[in-house]
Amino acid sequence: MSYLNPSDAVAQQENLARQIFDELRTKTFDGVGITRVSYGEGEQTARNIMANVAKQLGMTVEDDPAGNVYMTLKGRDPQAKPVVIGSHIDSVAQGGNFDGAAGVVSGLIACAGLIKAGIKPPRDIKVMGIRAEESAWFGVSYIGSRSALGTLPSNSLENAKRSDTGRTLSDHMRSAGCNPDRIRDGHVFLPPKSLESYIEVHIEQGPVLEEAEIPVAVVTGIRGNRRLPNATCNGEYSHCGGVPRSHRRDAVIATAELVSFLDCVWEECEATDKDFAFTVGKFFTDQEWHAMTKISGRVEFSLDMRSLDNNFVESMVDRVKKKVEEISERRGVSFNLGNVTKADPGVMDVSIKGEMIEGAEVLGIPYIQLASGASHDAAAFAAAGVPTQMLFIRNANGSHNPDEAMRISDFMEATRLLTWWLSNKL
Amino acid sequence: MSYLNPSDAVAQQENLARQIFDELRTKTFDGVGITRVSYGEGEQTARNIMANVAKQLGMTVEDDPAGNVYMTLKGRDPQAKPVVIGSHIDSVAQGGNFDGAAGVVSGLIACAGLIKAGIKPPRDIKVMGIRAEESAWFGVSYIGSRSALGTLPSNSLENAKRSDTGRTLSDHMRSAGCNPDRIRDGHVFLPPKSLESYIEVHIEQGPVLEEAEIPVAVVTGIRGNRRLPNATCNGEYSHCGGVPRSHRRDAVIATAELVSFLDCVWEECEATDKDFAFTVGKFFTDQEWHAMTKISGRVEFSLDMRSLDNNFVESMVDRVKKKVEEISERRGVSFNLGNVTKADPGVMDVSIKGEMIEGAEVLGIPYIQLASGASHDAAAFAAAGVPTQMLFIRNANGSHNPDEAMRISDFMEATRLLTWWLSNKL
Repeated sequence: MSYLNPSDAVAQQENLARQIFDELRTKTFDGVGITRVSYGEGEQTARNIMANVAKQLGMTVEDDPAGNVYMTLKGRDPQAKPVVIGSHIDSVAQGGNFDGAAGVVSGLIACAGLIKAGIKPPRDIKVMGIRAEESAWFGVSYIGSRSALGTLPSNSLENAKRSDTGRTLSDHMRSAGCNPDRIRDGHVFLPPKSLESYIEVHIEQGPVLEEAEIPVAVVTGIRGNRRLPNATCNGEYSHCGGVPRSHRRDAVIATAELVSFLDCVWEECEATDKDFAFTVGKFFTDQEWHAMTKISGRVEFSLDMRSLDNNFVESMVDRVKKKVEEISERRGVSFNLGNVTKADPGVMDVSIKGEMIEGAEVLGIPYIQLASGASHDAAAFAAAGVPTQMLFIRNANGSHNPDEAMRISDFMEATRLLTWWLSNKL
Repeated sequence: MSYLNPSDAVAQQENLARQIFDELRTKTFDGVGITRVSYGEGEQTARNIMANVAKQLGMTVEDDPAGNVYMTLKGRDPQAKPVVIGSHIDSVAQGGNFDGAAGVVSGLIACAGLIKAGIKPPRDIKVMGIRAEESAWFGVSYIGSRSALGTLPSNSLENAKRSDTGRTLSDHMRSAGCNPDRIRDGHVFLPPKSLESYIEVHIEQGPVLEEAEIPVAVVTGIRGNRRLPNATCNGEYSHCGGVPRSHRRDAVIATAELVSFLDCVWEECEATDKDFAFTVGKFFTDQEWHAMTKISGRVEFSLDMRSLDNNFVESMVDRVKKKVEEISERRGVSFNLGNVTKADPGVMDVSIKGEMIEGAEVLGIPYIQLASGASHDAAAFAAAGVPTQMLFIRNANGSHNPDEAMRISDFMEATRLLTWWLSNKL
């Protein structure tokens, strides 16, 4: 029996990749986009699709107490530290098919290529389908990966509540057949020191590769973030005509002022090349109470701030606190910023980054180096001390929406690079 | 039989006033505040309560095609033009008990006083319970009064849709037993030239009387307004981490900029003593689509701008249009301002105003003169050419909320002034 080289072998898996993406789309379509709720039905469906493919490829399948699935291609040395190829299998509501899933499929396709090429790797390759990465659901990021690594703040299990149900994380884990008690008891399924490295392939969530007409990026770092999932501004409802400006306690104007302040900060950062971004994804008056002719007494909003510079983004939390105090005093409102969640920037491994660049050059794949504005499970692995590297795939129309558009040819180029690295650098 | 003087006679009606307010509160309480939806159940309940009191007082009761109720104390000369004492019987959602209703009750109590004093007025006094003043429901102001006066834009019957049901105004009128076809056919129930004058008593909706510790104000004019009941800003949903500032189409930042711009305009107006106020009572991202980690692709908002200076408030519509064009170009969003509704300022009648001041001085009632920031049916009567005057009653905590707090003693002072005027100036 003659074997293909890994690059040709993986190229032959394109139809399998299409088939997996099609099945994912068909089974988790919500009428508008893709919905795979963290610890919900769509996420479970995605896990099962991945696990079935892995079984058909002859890989072993195992789940951890947090519900992360590990699909392992056994290596020659069972004692050697495994490499993890992972990404998340959940999505935002009405999101896209490739955000998260593409990284898991890339790992499976790379393994399929290695199998086809008859290569038994020197160490186990664990393709990891990670639960609950999207903080839209529980207001907490990296739930699955941090549960596995032992770095999830233990109070999240009871404090974090899913936005659509109001039920706790531990309750939802249990409903999904997981074992939150083991996590609470301090069981670490994936001790960071037991891992050789963590690699994550992900679609780019911005337009840089698309505009540069380049299929792949080697990631240089991941922005850290500080988030206010559930902030409120409380003013006083009153008739809009009768109250002079000095007496108003208008929650809309007050919150708009905070947004405009942050926009000014960002503009200054741009001018001085300081990495920063903020997003107020939610900003809403109360549907039961608001009216055209009522001064608004309450606004609920979210705030996401991120930067590659951890000190800067931390300092922004203080600036926001100071700003809302000042606005409150001047406008007679009060802010409740609620819980502030925190994710430090993710540092990429210098030597793996160099190996990926070497691979792209050997294979003739056009690439650039690019910082990740978005956060990823990779940041949780990096923070836990696991040597970590990410690859981005070109993707039009951003992500977290049904219009995201990754070409399969670009996906295959990134997977070819991943396969090269697995065949040559383990 | 000896008669009381009107001032003493009306003072004896305080218990009747309390009784009517209590019945209104009990029967239109929604669990939080008062709800009397325009052409809905609570409004009908209020109409019936008022009509029953009028019947018990021996007044005649009649409804017009728009459902306004007229409770008439017959005068000596049936040919003489009647005076109308009116206000509205609807409320905003979870509003207060006195906004609107107090003016109708004041008219009834004044008539009860006149009856008790044995006074038959020289002309008919029509106490008018007006439908659908609150534009929160149909996005159109003064529906009842303008229907009666023949000044309601005829397309409102089909174009205006109630915010809670989406059904048209004509449809709701019909469900409430009214006759929108007669209004559409141009039938004018209350030709402006057939009226001697229109008087409206209303709670103050701001804190001025409360802070001045004065029970009553003689109103000097009513602000006109320009309103955008259903404006939207459309951007593009995208992942919040991946998209650089230059590529974002963030509907929240764009709309916040418009709000902050209007706040600056208002601040300038204050500094230059130009009468102006604006309110964005509604500002909301889409509950189905928004997420903490998604750039917002859509904001819906309302805008109410008002001024005693009609040219200024009209010019503000143009400035808003220009501003959103500029913001749209800079931020890659598009605004749809929707329908712009319009109500011109209401001019008070100089001679009635002088008579009310005379009455307050004769009766020893402390008063100030005050412009009305809020809009009222009185503005529709004034715009139709009817000599019009308003009185304000001190009221704590604003209106359009369940905490509004008018003291009955203040209500009785305003009603005593109204009764004096009815006995001396008809």
